[in-house]
Amino acid sequence: METKPLMKSDIQIAQEAVLKPISAIAESVGLTLDDIEQYGKYKAKLSYEAIDKLAVKQDGKVILVTSINPTPAGEGKSTVTVGLGDALNQLGKRTMIAMREPSLGPTMGIKGGATGGGYSQVLPMEDINLHFTGDIHAITSANNALSALIDNHIHQGNSLNIDARRIVWKRALDLNDRALRKVVIGLGGPVQGVPREDGFDITVASEIMAVLCLSNDLEDLKSRLAKMVVAYTYDKEPVKVEDLGVEGALALLLKDALKPNLVQTIEHSPALIHGGPFANIAHGCNSIAATKTAAKLADFVVTESGFGADLGAEKFLNIKTRASGIQPSAVVVVATIRALKMHGGAPKANLHLEDLQALEKGLENLKKHTETIEKFGLPFVVAINRFALDTDLELKFLAEWCEKQGMEVALTEVWEHGGKGGIQLAQAVLSQIEKNENNFNYLYELTDTIEEKVNSIVKNVYGGSGIEFSSKALRQMHEIEKNGWSGLPICMAKTQYSLSDNPGLLGRPSNFKIQVRELQPKLGAGFIVALTGDVMTMPGLPKKPAALEMDVDNTGKAAGLF
Amino acid sequence: METKPLMKSDIQIAQEAVLKPISAIAESVGLTLDDIEQYGKYKAKLSYEAIDKLAVKQDGKVILVTSINPTPAGEGKSTVTVGLGDALNQLGKRTMIAMREPSLGPTMGIKGGATGGGYSQVLPMEDINLHFTGDIHAITSANNALSALIDNHIHQGNSLNIDARRIVWKRALDLNDRALRKVVIGLGGPVQGVPREDGFDITVASEIMAVLCLSNDLEDLKSRLAKMVVAYTYDKEPVKVEDLGVEGALALLLKDALKPNLVQTIEHSPALIHGGPFANIAHGCNSIAATKTAAKLADFVVTESGFGADLGAEKFLNIKTRASGIQPSAVVVVATIRALKMHGGAPKANLHLEDLQALEKGLENLKKHTETIEKFGLPFVVAINRFALDTDLELKFLAEWCEKQGMEVALTEVWEHGGKGGIQLAQAVLSQIEKNENNFNYLYELTDTIEEKVNSIVKNVYGGSGIEFSSKALRQMHEIEKNGWSGLPICMAKTQYSLSDNPGLLGRPSNFKIQVRELQPKLGAGFIVALTGDVMTMPGLPKKPAALEMDVDNTGKAAGLF
Repeated sequence: METKPLMKSDIQIAQEAVLKPISAIAESVGLTLDDIEQYGKYKAKLSYEAIDKLAVKQDGKVILVTSINPTPAGEGKSTVTVGLGDALNQLGKRTMIAMREPSLGPTMGIKGGATGGGYSQVLPMEDINLHFTGDIHAITSANNALSALIDNHIHQGNSLNIDARRIVWKRALDLNDRALRKVVIGLGGPVQGVPREDGFDITVASEIMAVLCLSNDLEDLKSRLAKMVVAYTYDKEPVKVEDLGVEGALALLLKDALKPNLVQTIEHSPALIHGGPFANIAHGCNSIAATKTAAKLADFVVTESGFGADLGAEKFLNIKTRASGIQPSAVVVVATIRALKMHGGAPKANLHLEDLQALEKGLENLKKHTETIEKFGLPFVVAINRFALDTDLELKFLAEWCEKQGMEVALTEVWEHGGKGGIQLAQAVLSQIEKNENNFNYLYELTDTIEEKVNSIVKNVYGGSGIEFSSKALRQMHEIEKNGWSGLPICMAKTQYSLSDNPGLLGRPSNFKIQVRELQPKLGAGFIVALTGDVMTMPGLPKKPAALEMDVDNTGKAAGLF
Repeated sequence: METKPLMKSDIQIAQEAVLKPISAIAESVGLTLDDIEQYGKYKAKLSYEAIDKLAVKQDGKVILVTSINPTPAGEGKSTVTVGLGDALNQLGKRTMIAMREPSLGPTMGIKGGATGGGYSQVLPMEDINLHFTGDIHAITSANNALSALIDNHIHQGNSLNIDARRIVWKRALDLNDRALRKVVIGLGGPVQGVPREDGFDITVASEIMAVLCLSNDLEDLKSRLAKMVVAYTYDKEPVKVEDLGVEGALALLLKDALKPNLVQTIEHSPALIHGGPFANIAHGCNSIAATKTAAKLADFVVTESGFGADLGAEKFLNIKTRASGIQPSAVVVVATIRALKMHGGAPKANLHLEDLQALEKGLENLKKHTETIEKFGLPFVVAINRFALDTDLELKFLAEWCEKQGMEVALTEVWEHGGKGGIQLAQAVLSQIEKNENNFNYLYELTDTIEEKVNSIVKNVYGGSGIEFSSKALRQMHEIEKNGWSGLPICMAKTQYSLSDNPGLLGRPSNFKIQVRELQPKLGAGFIVALTGDVMTMPGLPKKPAALEMDVDNTGKAAGLF
């Protein structure tokens, strides 16, 4: 039961845990000291040689963890991911966890790391939540080196005829920094370059993050980097990285970042944590390198995708599966009674009160997400992540509701009990996989038009009634078609809080249209981003940022991470 | 002899070298596996516990390597630093090297890494020249997190009454990116923050880089961060990091970056590479943590400071010694016959031609730098880093000139022969140390006025006739005095190419004045920066950046690094 206020904090539990040397964790999955590159005592990267050697092995089964639309009440998807991995290992199933690495932006902004919670955490949580092994910094460097090379190209004569008003490549920082969303650069006269409008995205929304996560190896990475469109000429022809001739330099900057990172859970389950695109403004899945490698090293892989099934899971299933060939064998949809009550209209202050009416109404949000998973043809289990104040009546109501819907449901208490608290869920998932009723299919064909693809997501996944394209988006759609790029999948950028593009519409809204305000072709990532509603690719900080509570003592011990 | 064009390239030599595991290098200086945190197989950080344990040990002697003003002909100061360290080890002296870590900006801009050359290199050169152990990225993150927190503070109500026109804290990226020197941020309406002017410095010029390099431990680091002035209020009162309450968060972001990095030379000499401030726009010395730790682990430490003795060495001796208590036992001044001929007026295209007249004239530059070292009361040796095309007559002329001046001089061939090529230099340095004629003194007292301190550097170190302060600098001087900060040492920001502030004046210019255009108090670093001439704190890229030649193959092997 999640009862954080009365119990130890996540960081306390993490700091009391006794870790095994990462070499021992590597050994537990059949890797030698030569196969890993250690980063401190408890983190390691897998070498390319080690990954190459695994190619001949059979693939384990992939379990995808997703959730209802997140609320301020907390759902605990990462916690359940970790706990389920530990539970499967407790049941004697050789299981590995594959997750994303956290961005510094939210870590310093709003409380909430991305390393699980309670007794279901990956460790060392401080390192993973801060710089980890430097992957995101390498992406920031590559992203901004490219920007500097573009501006330098224009400054030094502009032989590619780049229209400075049509540079689509933005700079990036891995921070929440609203003041950098819209900037003017190159001011100060001829010595300082060419003035133009620019903006910064958070690094986890950079196309290079998507490229890193969707590349199967360094060669694939370099060829994806080469294809990225950075600008258009005065004749409106696309300018790609390969035209600048710097894909080699960018790939070199990413040569270590592409190697997946090995860590452990509190119970010493092996975990690969690698790549960190947000699921609202990016594709929301950890790297293909991590998921594929985990599947080679274990019989089961528990992996997550960001936010609700409308975002991360949809993109996992329509984008990541296509780029990797990975298909999940089963899906877990995480919910909490507290969050469901919020979706049903209960105010946050009243979540400790029993409220069957709000619960019933909120269950519609869960229902929509499970319908989505069914449309993808995948078996699923609903995981109810139990909190201390959930009442018996509420739990009973929920169990009966699931039974009525014919849904598998399992209570989890992984926050408090680690893997032991996830045994019921693990058994339910294993039984779904054994039934083998997997009829996976995509929700659109790549040959569909852009409009048909977006429409399929809006109708099948969001439950909306249609789309409204802005005139800018329509113009961009025309450009994309003209350039022959419309055969790519769609990466929706949408608020995580609602099935619609309006963060205020909780539960299961209906009869809404999705406003597509911009379409951005990302040829390196291999998808077209559709920006909807007011979603922003650079978050801001709250009035009281988490940074105010962060600290370190003279021995290097961290405080204030959550 | 440096004969690069006819021989293997630096990266070829580096990639053919057989490295020892970093654990073996650690063992060679008495450190156990528990004392280090490995970053891959050939890099490690020293733990705080390991450093604490060393406190009781005696300090080794520090040898400071500096040079004449750099020219496009190349001097090879890093190469001589590494070769001298190897030579001392060959002579059976327990020696460690302490150097700065390279910035990505120049690595991707102009050819020339900072890891030595030929057979006198620190390894793995690709990693050290790229992201290394992430120290500089941690500084970039802390620097920009602080910027985001300042702008957020203003956006969220500005309770500290910060005048957005008087924010002195700039953003930073570790790249050469001229277009970011002067920018306007916060555009786009109320949701995107408060519009204001800003700019980016290269990270190695960030005050946080100086703080990291001048801190004696984490506690010192945090208290220095707290003191940094970021802005002024509408009442012109300084606003410090401690007023924002985020020194804990910044220190947490730097908790691993403060640990020195252990690597090895081609000959397996141990080297600590840590901190990387430029010597023209920052204080130009590796970290106190690295130099002090090296002095505890070895009997001799060979360390360098950036560019000529007018920049890095002056700051080492006036700033770093004060913050650390470290005093060099001897100084090495590196020159090449090629570079001296350039200082004497020979054009770059003619450097292969014998030219005793140019050599004689160029020797005045060397003479000035040795006079500076004498003023500091330190014994020195001139190291002539030999190139293949240096003629016998030129070498003879130089030897006689040094004899006439009463200077110790040694030829080195460390590029071609590694430590063996530095034996003569090592013996000369040891003999200087044995003579024990060290009368070290500062060139100014902290209680001198700002004008007196700058004047002392200009007259004693640059050989100039005086200073001209801009009206802005005078106003800032007045503010600094009013705030009671004038007791700090001075960190001059000046072109590296000339003793004057005009990069075109080679050799030994005289009768020049130094234009001080700005004075910036850096309370965390503990110095006042004096910006002179046109020196810029964010470099630009050349027409053909080195990035165009950088590449990586599918196994992760780097190419195009120099």
